[in-house]
Amino acid sequence: MNLEQFPSKLLERAVSETAKLPGVGRKSALRLVLHLLRKDAQQTHTLAESLVRLRDDVRYCRCCHNISDNEMCDICSNERRDRSTICVVENVQNVMAVEATGQYNGLYHVLGGVISPMDGIGPGDLAIESLMQRLGQGEVREIIFALNPTMEGDTTNFYLSRRIAALALPEGTLRLSVLARGICVGDDLEYTDEVTLGRSIVDRVAFRQGG
Amino acid sequence: MNLEQFPSKLLERAVSETAKLPGVGRKSALRLVLHLLRKDAQQTHTLAESLVRLRDDVRYCRCCHNISDNEMCDICSNERRDRSTICVVENVQNVMAVEATGQYNGLYHVLGGVISPMDGIGPGDLAIESLMQRLGQGEVREIIFALNPTMEGDTTNFYLSRRIAALALPEGTLRLSVLARGICVGDDLEYTDEVTLGRSIVDRVAFRQGG
Repeated sequence: MNLEQFPSKLLERAVSETAKLPGVGRKSALRLVLHLLRKDAQQTHTLAESLVRLRDDVRYCRCCHNISDNEMCDICSNERRDRSTICVVENVQNVMAVEATGQYNGLYHVLGGVISPMDGIGPGDLAIESLMQRLGQGEVREIIFALNPTMEGDTTNFYLSRRIAALALPEGTLRLSVLARGICVGDDLEYTDEVTLGRSIVDRVAFRQGG
Repeated sequence: MNLEQFPSKLLERAVSETAKLPGVGRKSALRLVLHLLRKDAQQTHTLAESLVRLRDDVRYCRCCHNISDNEMCDICSNERRDRSTICVVENVQNVMAVEATGQYNGLYHVLGGVISPMDGIGPGDLAIESLMQRLGQGEVREIIFALNPTMEGDTTNFYLSRRIAALALPEGTLRLSVLARGICVGDDLEYTDEVTLGRSIVDRVAFRQGG
């Protein structure tokens, strides 16, 4: 017996398409779609139009590959950003996360992923060549690796450091750094994993009043 | 400081519209929208079109008010369904849930909600008059109340039973029944709440081999 007998083909199709979104099962999809039916038709039209507009008109910054409305993104084209520092991130969300801290005023480079042999993602699938080109122009003084602290992120950091070494830039012109790893602010030492706690001891920094 | 600086207005708008869906926060919305960007444009177009088509072309069965592609739904227009029994449910999902059991061959009546003074939903907001009209035609022999076993569901059952009594149908022509309440199949008595367990004792049924 068919356990999902939809009373309407239109409903079934809308649910099937919605359920293709990640993390949205068919039950959730049905709930979302029936919600739209209860709301004003305008809401559905606006939602659909905004998704299609984004998908059709999306552009990526030709410099850092972040999503952008223009050929060059607001950050790359902002004269007040420090052009000598590039923060290497995996994706758009991570640009937004770093921006939200308000602690960074340099540029970004969005790789579009990390090296992950398990998922079949190699260096050729990432925006690495364009990063090397940016470094070759000689304006950059520091690269900050801001990838996730995972096996894949570390592998990618290592690969990038080797590629950068192969550029044979003049000694002392480019500093490589990585986000500090340590205990989370507000966290409890008792519940911090030993690898992280160990790193926070090894990488301890000079005490400053006010944290 | 703005904690959500979107790199693109198109992206921001798509996220805002997606985040209007129930249970979808802005982080989830961003994840869904960026997923669509990684996929073929056709997927976004199909999703958007299916939602708009449903919203614009949806119809409700003039008999039972279930969602339908036609003036009368597949169940109401099916000659092989038992026209003497009506199962009263809250919404479309509940029609699908009862259909999925394969244990019911009668018709439905979708109320479109339950009486809930807390939410400002009174009898006038539900498809109750049309149910009374269906009963007045004299073909129906049994009404099954299949609303959720909640305060609101019970209140609605009670209200409907009073309205049906007021129809003053000839004695013995219409039977009112309600879904059995008892222990869930596969459940453990130890973890069954006492109200449910109490009901399952009071409403015990004759033992049948094979459950």
